[in-house]
Amino acid sequence: MRMPDVTEPFDLVLFGASGDLALRKLIPALYYLHLDGRLHEEGRIWAVTRSTTNLESYLEHIKQAAHQYGTEVEPKIWQSFIRRIRHIGMDLDKASGYAKLAKKLQGANQRCVFYCAVHSRLYPEISEQLFAQNIINEHSIIVLEKPIGSDYQSGQAINRRVAEFFDESQIYRIDHYLGKETVQNLLALRFANSIFEHQWNQRYIDHVQITISETVGVEQRAGFYEGTGALRDMLQNHLLQLLCMTAMEPPSSMAPESVRDEKVKVIKALKPIVGDDLLDKVVRGQYEAGLIQTKDGNEMVPRYRDEPGVSQDSYTDTFVAVKAEIDNWRWAGVPFYLRTGKRLAERSCEIVIQFKEVPHSLFEMQNKKTMANKLVFRLQPDEGVRLQMCEKRIGNHMQVRPMTLSLNNAGQKKRVPDAYERLLADAINGNATLFLREDELMSAWQWADPILQFWQQADQRPEPYNSGSWGPAASTLLLAKDGRLWQENN
Amino acid sequence: MRMPDVTEPFDLVLFGASGDLALRKLIPALYYLHLDGRLHEEGRIWAVTRSTTNLESYLEHIKQAAHQYGTEVEPKIWQSFIRRIRHIGMDLDKASGYAKLAKKLQGANQRCVFYCAVHSRLYPEISEQLFAQNIINEHSIIVLEKPIGSDYQSGQAINRRVAEFFDESQIYRIDHYLGKETVQNLLALRFANSIFEHQWNQRYIDHVQITISETVGVEQRAGFYEGTGALRDMLQNHLLQLLCMTAMEPPSSMAPESVRDEKVKVIKALKPIVGDDLLDKVVRGQYEAGLIQTKDGNEMVPRYRDEPGVSQDSYTDTFVAVKAEIDNWRWAGVPFYLRTGKRLAERSCEIVIQFKEVPHSLFEMQNKKTMANKLVFRLQPDEGVRLQMCEKRIGNHMQVRPMTLSLNNAGQKKRVPDAYERLLADAINGNATLFLREDELMSAWQWADPILQFWQQADQRPEPYNSGSWGPAASTLLLAKDGRLWQENN
Repeated sequence: MRMPDVTEPFDLVLFGASGDLALRKLIPALYYLHLDGRLHEEGRIWAVTRSTTNLESYLEHIKQAAHQYGTEVEPKIWQSFIRRIRHIGMDLDKASGYAKLAKKLQGANQRCVFYCAVHSRLYPEISEQLFAQNIINEHSIIVLEKPIGSDYQSGQAINRRVAEFFDESQIYRIDHYLGKETVQNLLALRFANSIFEHQWNQRYIDHVQITISETVGVEQRAGFYEGTGALRDMLQNHLLQLLCMTAMEPPSSMAPESVRDEKVKVIKALKPIVGDDLLDKVVRGQYEAGLIQTKDGNEMVPRYRDEPGVSQDSYTDTFVAVKAEIDNWRWAGVPFYLRTGKRLAERSCEIVIQFKEVPHSLFEMQNKKTMANKLVFRLQPDEGVRLQMCEKRIGNHMQVRPMTLSLNNAGQKKRVPDAYERLLADAINGNATLFLREDELMSAWQWADPILQFWQQADQRPEPYNSGSWGPAASTLLLAKDGRLWQENN
Repeated sequence: MRMPDVTEPFDLVLFGASGDLALRKLIPALYYLHLDGRLHEEGRIWAVTRSTTNLESYLEHIKQAAHQYGTEVEPKIWQSFIRRIRHIGMDLDKASGYAKLAKKLQGANQRCVFYCAVHSRLYPEISEQLFAQNIINEHSIIVLEKPIGSDYQSGQAINRRVAEFFDESQIYRIDHYLGKETVQNLLALRFANSIFEHQWNQRYIDHVQITISETVGVEQRAGFYEGTGALRDMLQNHLLQLLCMTAMEPPSSMAPESVRDEKVKVIKALKPIVGDDLLDKVVRGQYEAGLIQTKDGNEMVPRYRDEPGVSQDSYTDTFVAVKAEIDNWRWAGVPFYLRTGKRLAERSCEIVIQFKEVPHSLFEMQNKKTMANKLVFRLQPDEGVRLQMCEKRIGNHMQVRPMTLSLNNAGQKKRVPDAYERLLADAINGNATLFLREDELMSAWQWADPILQFWQQADQRPEPYNSGSWGPAASTLLLAKDGRLWQENN
């Protein structure tokens, strides 16, 4: 499964090329791939935006965005990079635009990647129009951003429509968390180190915590977020994907189907959250006003319902925590506590593997705190892995103390590539290992649906939590009931 | 089992006070304990030397030695330290000397520690004389340096004689390797970290290597060494002790008898080396001339037989390597390769725990070298622990690379105390955990005896090896037969 250092010749058609994702992530990722010489010289980028723009103003736009979002632009390289960029102004819901696109793409490379950085409701239309214009060939790939649909039914509808025009092997459902170095390293650490994988089960692991916390609020995205919420935006995709990578059985190889088969098995083994569990194992929150720490001190921020574009009686979840359980031999009895939210105390993303305490303690402890081993994969804001262990305190007492070993790319002086660099190159090269298969996505919706339905039927407002806190009190209680604590500030 | 910070009042009678061990190790250790405020102010040191010396010249002698061996002497502290020192000139084989000692010790503290830093053949005589002079009380302790005897029979004879005058609970057989911080840390890492102890057995560990290598030759100690050799001097005690600490079951507490019970069980479970194994599993070597690396470059050194005091047809072993096996559930099938020697390539002492390879490799390896996890306890020259793991190489390939995590007292800025500091304080405080019990010592002799007898009967010269090498070719072969390699220069 060794990836080539340089991609094959390609044409990348980027729908939503002036959107937030393209400006923040996709264009910078393509620039860095270009900088590293990883893009074939016959590789072109077709920026599809509204018809009101032209190439010149688009290039100016992405240059400004590059500066704004911290891309380290070397002017000469940037100049050679933008020579790859073509511009197409078109409306995505009008057939005429696709005819124009088809004309422009005449003589394009065999490998055409259609990247949909737009709302998922547009995926069927885009697919159909591309088909109608006869632009799709067997080497074409369509990349779909999450969330795909807003529940099982809508997700299925979108997938089915797209599948009329693209074969499943051509559909690349992206979850950029899977492209993060630390998530790859999670696989390497699990499957290349016997000392970890041998203990990666219910005999040795007490529980797992996965947190994706944001300090930002809804920002200018209320139009999207009001109908989405934290469960659909983060839990059903990113958090479940991280759970899969943590919990899956060793695949027989890194080939796409081997890995995806194992991930699907995990999602399918998730215990359905129904009945009383909908109240007992799920916490739904919405942020109130509060103090958020910023670089320049504390800032008072408004409550969600006072954000621009949000309704005063919105029930949208800006926080969700779940006690997930996996019904298989490996994980029976090991809770996976998942949580995500906006306006939390800290921006971070961590997977915490909490091993069980030693069965019998021989040594004086420095304090009463748990000293059990813990492996933490940190994906955000800095990437790295750390292992908490105990060692002897130097001196005449037989006393142990906790210490943390840092595994973060020790000695690797390379720049850590952004997740999108990895995934864009994989898509161009046709490697689907790190993309979601249809059954994976649908199984995830299947697990999430009862929660969404319950919330809708219960017609209750989410529990309020102060901005700058770690979420509603019920989230703390979710673990406290099991005699556990969220691991903050580690 | 918490040790007090300051010892109880004591009188320490040091037989062999001007010997090599006292000058290099014991006096400096006592000085550091004094410096750290760990010696009770009512603690006195009785330096017993030949009758030709006096206190003044003795103090001058130890001061010079302190400088020579790198003790960081603070003049004021040294002045207060030497006020603890009394001097007794006497011959250890004459009753009259002990009468003098008895007289001097009138009014001494209850806790009297008789430290025998002399040849073990003198232990019975010293014990008997102390008894005859009525100096022994129930709080007295006798500390015996290794090796005690030169085989099972002589060891037993010495133990039995000493036991006529001291109770077993008063006899402290010292092996200073047990006082090293890293050996203590081995216990802490094993028994305070479930991730290690759960895998500390034949299911997960491929083999263990324990090496104590010296670059020095026999120096001026031929008189002692000619009748001793590497097996008696190092293997039967230090190496077996390290094997015990590595292999023992978790004791129920750190209480002396708990720990020593477990260690004895390991020695008793050692598979006897008899019959063909005496040739197949033991390598005996003697150094030839060769180049030894020194700070100032290479130095040509003579062969053992040309060293001063060594006979031209000496069969003394200056190197020994053994494949030891432990017949119990935990260790069946896991070889413990032990080796020690003089004039080897490097001065070091390491315990290498080699875990098994992962059962199935998913990733591209950087090279064909083994990537299995490895935990290395380094006792010499610097103390520390390191863990070899695999991590993902940063970048687009799913390629793993080995990396080493260093656990050496990370973040602990304290001076690492010398093993003798720990053990002297333990002896004064009456804590025998880290001292050998009689059954432990005798079991070790029992295991070593067939090898010693075979060598004597075979009347063969040890295999020659060049000074500056890693020992005879047969040592490499000992592991190569099993498809393994000694881990050098790691």
